[in-house]
Amino acid sequence: MPLPEKSLIKALRRAARGGRGAGVVRGIGDDCAVLKIGASEEILVTTDFSLEWIHFRREWHPPESVGHRCLARGLSDIAAMGGEPLAAFLSLALPAELPQTWVDGFMQGFLRLAKRFKVPLAGGDTAQSPTGVLADIIVLGRVPRGRALLRSGAKPGDQIYVTGLLGHSEASLEALQREGTRNRRPKLKDEYFFPEPRIKVGRFLREKRLASAAIDTSDGLSTDLSHICEESGVGAVVHAHAIPRTSGITLEQALHGGEDYQLVFTSPRQTKVPRNVAGVKITQIGEIVKGSRMVLEKDGIRTRVEARGWEHFSG
Amino acid sequence: MPLPEKSLIKALRRAARGGRGAGVVRGIGDDCAVLKIGASEEILVTTDFSLEWIHFRREWHPPESVGHRCLARGLSDIAAMGGEPLAAFLSLALPAELPQTWVDGFMQGFLRLAKRFKVPLAGGDTAQSPTGVLADIIVLGRVPRGRALLRSGAKPGDQIYVTGLLGHSEASLEALQREGTRNRRPKLKDEYFFPEPRIKVGRFLREKRLASAAIDTSDGLSTDLSHICEESGVGAVVHAHAIPRTSGITLEQALHGGEDYQLVFTSPRQTKVPRNVAGVKITQIGEIVKGSRMVLEKDGIRTRVEARGWEHFSG
Repeated sequence: MPLPEKSLIKALRRAARGGRGAGVVRGIGDDCAVLKIGASEEILVTTDFSLEWIHFRREWHPPESVGHRCLARGLSDIAAMGGEPLAAFLSLALPAELPQTWVDGFMQGFLRLAKRFKVPLAGGDTAQSPTGVLADIIVLGRVPRGRALLRSGAKPGDQIYVTGLLGHSEASLEALQREGTRNRRPKLKDEYFFPEPRIKVGRFLREKRLASAAIDTSDGLSTDLSHICEESGVGAVVHAHAIPRTSGITLEQALHGGEDYQLVFTSPRQTKVPRNVAGVKITQIGEIVKGSRMVLEKDGIRTRVEARGWEHFSG
Repeated sequence: MPLPEKSLIKALRRAARGGRGAGVVRGIGDDCAVLKIGASEEILVTTDFSLEWIHFRREWHPPESVGHRCLARGLSDIAAMGGEPLAAFLSLALPAELPQTWVDGFMQGFLRLAKRFKVPLAGGDTAQSPTGVLADIIVLGRVPRGRALLRSGAKPGDQIYVTGLLGHSEASLEALQREGTRNRRPKLKDEYFFPEPRIKVGRFLREKRLASAAIDTSDGLSTDLSHICEESGVGAVVHAHAIPRTSGITLEQALHGGEDYQLVFTSPRQTKVPRNVAGVKITQIGEIVKGSRMVLEKDGIRTRVEARGWEHFSG
């Protein structure tokens, strides 16, 4: 059985050294990390794979984007629960022939996002990969006891809201599949390559008690809203014209495309929801109704919507 | 991007449904799991890959063994910190052509061990694998505040102890490499295919305050003892004749072979350490000394020992 590169391990340890957070009693360097939370808090846990050929391609995604998106997937789940990120853990398996510059780029993208959200990298695992880059991100968060935003609290009459714009990631992915990277130079501002987890919005919704249910749109609006409907035992009506998207993005892309990392949430009708939270636009796109069906209303005609995005075991 | 099998996700959800633990406020079915611990406790976190061709082979290891060993790797790290397992999370990527019977066997081995240690499966991730079975196990544990068994507490004069017998896994692996599964039918009692995490021993050491430092031997005695030496800033003398091994196991195998999942720990000289804890033999194998070198004493001759097992990023 092959021995993982000592140089990689050392680079990771070095990279992680600065990352002591308030909640990390002991980080890298023991059998387990040791974390603490406040006496009146609960722990949030989420894990997400980032697998080469499945979730990204080395010829499409620069290493900084792969590292950023790897962590963003975990942070977005913490945001959807209204939590504060506590610590990240990275299990990373690399193929023997991978250039060191790729690993450096990956860690740079990962750690830049970690620093912005003050998330220490507190541990993980390394291994040689049988093929391709294999990453699994684990993010722990904390939330006041009983106050996590769940998928299960939506009630008939609640309004449905979404943050930011939808469909951009799906459109970007389709462009990459069609044209490769020819017409597309990734810039730091590009929200497909460097999506912004909605931590501040999630925290605001939780603190102000605005949301009856919430989820992130990592799997696509139709799939993620269907999870709220399932877990809450309700149906939903979505107004096609209201779904926020930039010009050039189709309704199909905005409705079913994944990896946007926006939040979808529901609020009781009488709740005043700001149109903008922490610089992010909030748009009402529909209502929760009785039953179990998701319906799209377009030009006065209602059609049933099926979940057509990703399906996950859990967050 | 391919959609993971809905049937697998449903099977995992079903398998996990029974697994509500006292610490799990909310398990599978939301963006994150929600866990709680006592006000005077700290959280332990460990992640470990189990990758096909790197950590196991489908032609050598029956699926029940792969599932068992996957979870055992995480539980062994919790044991080495003297912790109580709180919840497990499984990220599992499967190749499209994998038979359902293999997945069922894997989950059976995993859940049988989880049930024995009362560890709920509280979440994770699923994906299609680009190649081979890829698993990442995350185990959270809890421990009274400030009481985790660390690698860093060993002092010159402390005695070094090990649980059980060493080298068996290395010998088994070498036999598999040499002969395949011809002469080796895995039975439930075989400690290579179904290693026993030393949770009870770790808990006993912590409760009775017997250990100044501890680690598990997942990477091999020489490597793991070297971690205690590094983190504690000490050296060690190991008596070759004292290393516990069954007949047929070489000194080399016992000293450097990994995956035994025993505990190595140190205790101050005046501390009375039982010869048996929870049915597991405890053997003194050497002493902690000043300096930074690990030395093997055999027939009166001392030679320097190099760490020659696995090297991990973290536990």
